[in-house]
Amino acid sequence: MTLSVDLNADMGESFGPWQMGDDAALLDIVTSANIACGYHAGDPDVMMQVMRKAVENGVGIGAHPGFDDLRGFGRHRLHVPQATLANQIRYQVGAAQAMARAAGGEVRHLKLHGALANMASEDAGLARACYEAALSVAPDIAIMVLAATQQQQAAEELGANWVGEIFADRAYNDDATLVDRSKPGAVIHDAEVAGERMARMVGEGAIITESGKRIETKIDTICLHGDTPEAIGIARSVRAALEGEGVAVKTFGK
Amino acid sequence: MTLSVDLNADMGESFGPWQMGDDAALLDIVTSANIACGYHAGDPDVMMQVMRKAVENGVGIGAHPGFDDLRGFGRHRLHVPQATLANQIRYQVGAAQAMARAAGGEVRHLKLHGALANMASEDAGLARACYEAALSVAPDIAIMVLAATQQQQAAEELGANWVGEIFADRAYNDDATLVDRSKPGAVIHDAEVAGERMARMVGEGAIITESGKRIETKIDTICLHGDTPEAIGIARSVRAALEGEGVAVKTFGK
Amino acid sequence: MTLSVDLNADMGESFGPWQMGDDAALLDIVTSANIACGYHAGDPDVMMQVMRKAVENGVGIGAHPGFDDLRGFGRHRLHVPQATLANQIRYQVGAAQAMARAAGGEVRHLKLHGALANMASEDAGLARACYEAALSVAPDIAIMVLAATQQQQAAEELGANWVGEIFADRAYNDDATLVDRSKPGAVIHDAEVAGERMARMVGEGAIITESGKRIETKIDTICLHGDTPEAIGIARSVRAALEGEGVAVKTFGK
Amino acid sequence: MTLSVDLNADMGESFGPWQMGDDAALLDIVTSANIACGYHAGDPDVMMQVMRKAVENGVGIGAHPGFDDLRGFGRHRLHVPQATLANQIRYQVGAAQAMARAAGGEVRHLKLHGALANMASEDAGLARACYEAALSVAPDIAIMVLAATQQQQAAEELGANWVGEIFADRAYNDDATLVDRSKPGAVIHDAEVAGERMARMVGEGAIITESGKRIETKIDTICLHGDTPEAIGIARSVRAALEGEGVAVKTFGK
Repeated sequence: MTLSVDLNADMGESFGPWQMGDDAALLDIVTSANIACGYHAGDPDVMMQVMRKAVENGVGIGAHPGFDDLRGFGRHRLHVPQATLANQIRYQVGAAQAMARAAGGEVRHLKLHGALANMASEDAGLARACYEAALSVAPDIAIMVLAATQQQQAAEELGANWVGEIFADRAYNDDATLVDRSKPGAVIHDAEVAGERMARMVGEGAIITESGKRIETKIDTICLHGDTPEAIGIARSVRAALEGEGVAVKTFGK
Repeated sequence: MTLSVDLNADMGESFGPWQMGDDAALLDIVTSANIACGYHAGDPDVMMQVMRKAVENGVGIGAHPGFDDLRGFGRHRLHVPQATLANQIRYQVGAAQAMARAAGGEVRHLKLHGALANMASEDAGLARACYEAALSVAPDIAIMVLAATQQQQAAEELGANWVGEIFADRAYNDDATLVDRSKPGAVIHDAEVAGERMARMVGEGAIITESGKRIETKIDTICLHGDTPEAIGIARSVRAALEGEGVAVKTFGK
Repeated sequence: MTLSVDLNADMGESFGPWQMGDDAALLDIVTSANIACGYHAGDPDVMMQVMRKAVENGVGIGAHPGFDDLRGFGRHRLHVPQATLANQIRYQVGAAQAMARAAGGEVRHLKLHGALANMASEDAGLARACYEAALSVAPDIAIMVLAATQQQQAAEELGANWVGEIFADRAYNDDATLVDRSKPGAVIHDAEVAGERMARMVGEGAIITESGKRIETKIDTICLHGDTPEAIGIARSVRAALEGEGVAVKTFGK
Repeated sequence: MTLSVDLNADMGESFGPWQMGDDAALLDIVTSANIACGYHAGDPDVMMQVMRKAVENGVGIGAHPGFDDLRGFGRHRLHVPQATLANQIRYQVGAAQAMARAAGGEVRHLKLHGALANMASEDAGLARACYEAALSVAPDIAIMVLAATQQQQAAEELGANWVGEIFADRAYNDDATLVDRSKPGAVIHDAEVAGERMARMVGEGAIITESGKRIETKIDTICLHGDTPEAIGIARSVRAALEGEGVAVKTFGK
C-alpha cells in the first residue's frame, strides 16, 4: 500500500489593497487550502480569487475562521463568550461556502486560525463549541485538528470526521506541544531536513519529538507556511522530499 | 379567489450592545423578515436570535445585504466596483444562509438595503449584478424588488423568481417613484389610511399615485417599517386593515 | 471646610445610527463625562455632539479609551502587546483632544473602559503603560483611577495627577474589590441608600465594605451609570442625597 | 535667489500585519510625509513608527485623512454628509497630532487622500468643509492643495496658509486636470524626464501642459509615489534631477 498525505497551507490572507503571501505559487504545491473568511484576514474579492484558483488546481477548499480582530490578524487571545464565538464561526463558514459555490467548488474542511486555534488546542470545550458550530452549518465538513491536542479530543468526542495535522517546520516536545520558538532548533529552516522528518513521521504514523520519543497519532495532513520570504521554497522542497520517499501527496479523503 | 399579500420589514439591525427596532413585536405581525447580514448592521448573534424567532413564528427569512458601511448604516452612496459588490453580496447571502440553517430555517428571499437599494432602483445594470451574485449562491432565492423600478426590470431580464413590493406609508409620484420626504403628504402617518390604501392597491393590482393615476404592477408584498417609535402601531393597524378588507396576509409563495 | 465630590459617568457610547444611554439627561447631573473615543463605542459625530453639550453645561471632559473591539463594546479581555495598546491609547486620546478643541473645551481626564479598566485594576504594569501613553500626549491630564486598586498604584508610581473613584451602586469586598454581581446585595438599586452610602464614604474618606470594614482612600469622584432604564433616576437621587448631606457636587480640581 | 521645492509622498499605509510601500526608503528622499490616519489605511503602531523615523530624518509630518473605508483604501467615492465628514477629519487630524507629539514632532500640514481628494478638487465647498474642520483643530496647519484646482480655490477663500502641489509623474491637460491614465503618455515612467519637467515647472512657476500651455501657479511641493515597485527609483531620480538643475529640495516653509 502506498502511503499518502495531504499538504495544507493558510491563504487568502490579503485584505483590500494589502497583499500577503503568494497564494498562486502555494496553490501549485499544496493539496488543501485554509482560506481566511474575512474576520482576521481576507475579504470577498480575495476569497473568490483564491477559491477560483483552488478549484482550477484541484486543491481542496477549507474555511479558516478566526477571531474578529482584523488589526491583530487574529493572533491575540480574545475572550468572547462561547455562544458568540459559535455564531461567528457559523457566519464565517457560511460566507466561505457561498464563495466556494460561486467559484465552482465547495468547502471540504474547517481549520481554526491563530489565537483561536491555540486556545482550542488547550481547551477541548472551546474546540468542541467551534466544531459543533461548523457542523451545524456544514454537516459533512471535515475537521482539521492539531494532532494529539485537545482539538483532536474534541473532534473525537463529537464523532466528527477529522484529519490530523502536523507541522513541517516545527520541533515537538514530548507532550506533543511545539517547542517554543525562542529555543534553538524550534523552527526547522532546512527544507531537506523538514522533508525527511515528514516522510518519517508519516511512515511511522507518529510524531517524533526532539528527544526522539514517538507519539503515535493519525497523520493526514502537513501544515506548510506561506507568509515568509522563504516559505515557497520550503514548501516545494518538502513536497519533493515526500515524493522522493515514495509518499503520495494528495488531498485527504480523495 | 381570495386576495393575499405578504408583509415584510427590515430587522436584525441591532449590533453588538446596540439595540435597534423591536424585532420580537414585528415578528408577530409580518410574514417575511429582511435580515441584515453584518455589513451595514447586524452581527452573528443578532442574526441567530432573530432567525430563531422567525422560524418559530413561521415568518419567511430574507437576506438583506447592504454596503460595507457600518457607521453610515448603509445609507450613504458608495461607489464600489460591481465585481467587488457582487462578491460582497455573495458573502452576505452565504453568511445568512448559514445562520438560517443553524436556526432551523432557510433564506427564501433577497432584498437590497438602503443606498444600495436606491441605486439599484435607478440602475438595472447594478441591480442585475447584485441579483446574479445572489443567484450564484442561492439559485432558488426569490428577489424582492421595488415594484415598477429598474430593480424589477433587472429581475425580469434575469428570468428570476421575483416578488413586487410597495410601501405602506409612502405616497407615490406618477412615475412610480416615491414622493420626496420633504413634501407634505409624502409619509402617511395614519395607520387606518395606510391600511385602506394598501387594500385598494392590492385589490386593483396597481400603485395608486398621489394624483390618482393607476400604475398596474404585480404587488406581492408590502414594506412596513420597524425603526420608529410608532412603527409597531402602524404595522399592526395595516395588517388589521388589510384583513378587515378581506385580504389574506401570508408569506409570499406559500 | 465643605466636603465636595465629583460625579462622573460614561457617555458618548452611541455609534452611527445606534443610540445608547441618555447623554443629555446625564449631562444635567454629572460634573465629569467619560467620553468614548471610537474604538469600543462612539464616533466623531457622537463625540462632537456630547462634547458640545458638556462644554455648555460646564461638565469636565474625559477621554475614555477602550479596546479595539466595537462588536464586543470593549467588554472582552483582549491580549494585545503593551506597545500596541499604548499607541491605541495615544490615538484615542488625541482624537478626543481634537474633538474637544473643536467643541470649545479640552480633555481634562483619562479613564479606562471596560475590560481594559478591569485588567488595569489588577495589573499595575498594564495600567502604567496606558497612563504613560496618555501622558505622552496630554502631559497635564488627570488620571481617574479605581480607588485602592493597581490603577491607583500605577498612577502613584508615575507621580501623576490622579483622582480616586468609587462606585455609587456597587458593594465592596474587604480587599476593595467589588462584590461579584452574581451575589445578593452586589448591586445597590435603592437610590436613597446609594446616596447615603456615598455621603458617608466621602465624609469618612474611606470605602466602607459590605462587612463594615473601612478602607481609607482618597475619594474624588463617584461613578454613576447611564446605560440602564433606571440609571437617570438613580443618578439624580444620588446627587440629591449627597447635596442633602451637605456635600458639594462639583467637577474635581475646580 | 535659489529656487527650492518640497517633495512629498503618502506613507504610513501599512495596516496591522499588512505592509505597503517602503516608508523607510522614502523618508530618505522626501521632505514632507503625508501619513494615513487609520481610516483608509494606517494604524497607531504604523503611525508611531513612521512618525518617529520622519522626526529622525527631519521630514515634515502631515495628516493624510481619507474616507472611512479601509477595505476600499479610501479610493471609492462615498457620499457622507459634510458635517459628518468634518468630524471625521477632526478625529483623524487629532489622532495624528497625538502620535506626532509622542514621536517628538508635530503635524505641519494636511493633505486629503484618494477619492476624498478627488472630490474636493472638483468641489470647493467640500474642500472648504474639510479644511475648516482641520483648522478648527490645528489653527496653524498648512493646507496642501492640488495646484489650480477647487482645492486651491477653497484654501484661498479661507485665507489659509496653503502650499501648491504638482505631480512628478503625470501629464496635465490644458485645464490643469491630469491626463486620464488610459491615454498614452499620461504617466511618466522615465525618471530623468520627470526630473527635468519638475525642474522646469518649478523654475517657471507654472504647470506645463501636454500641449505646451503654461498655467502659472504657486508650486511649493511635488508629489512622489511610493506604492509601486519602481517608485523608490523614480523618487530618487527626481530628487537628483532637481538638485542637478540647481533647485534646492527642502521642507516647505523651513
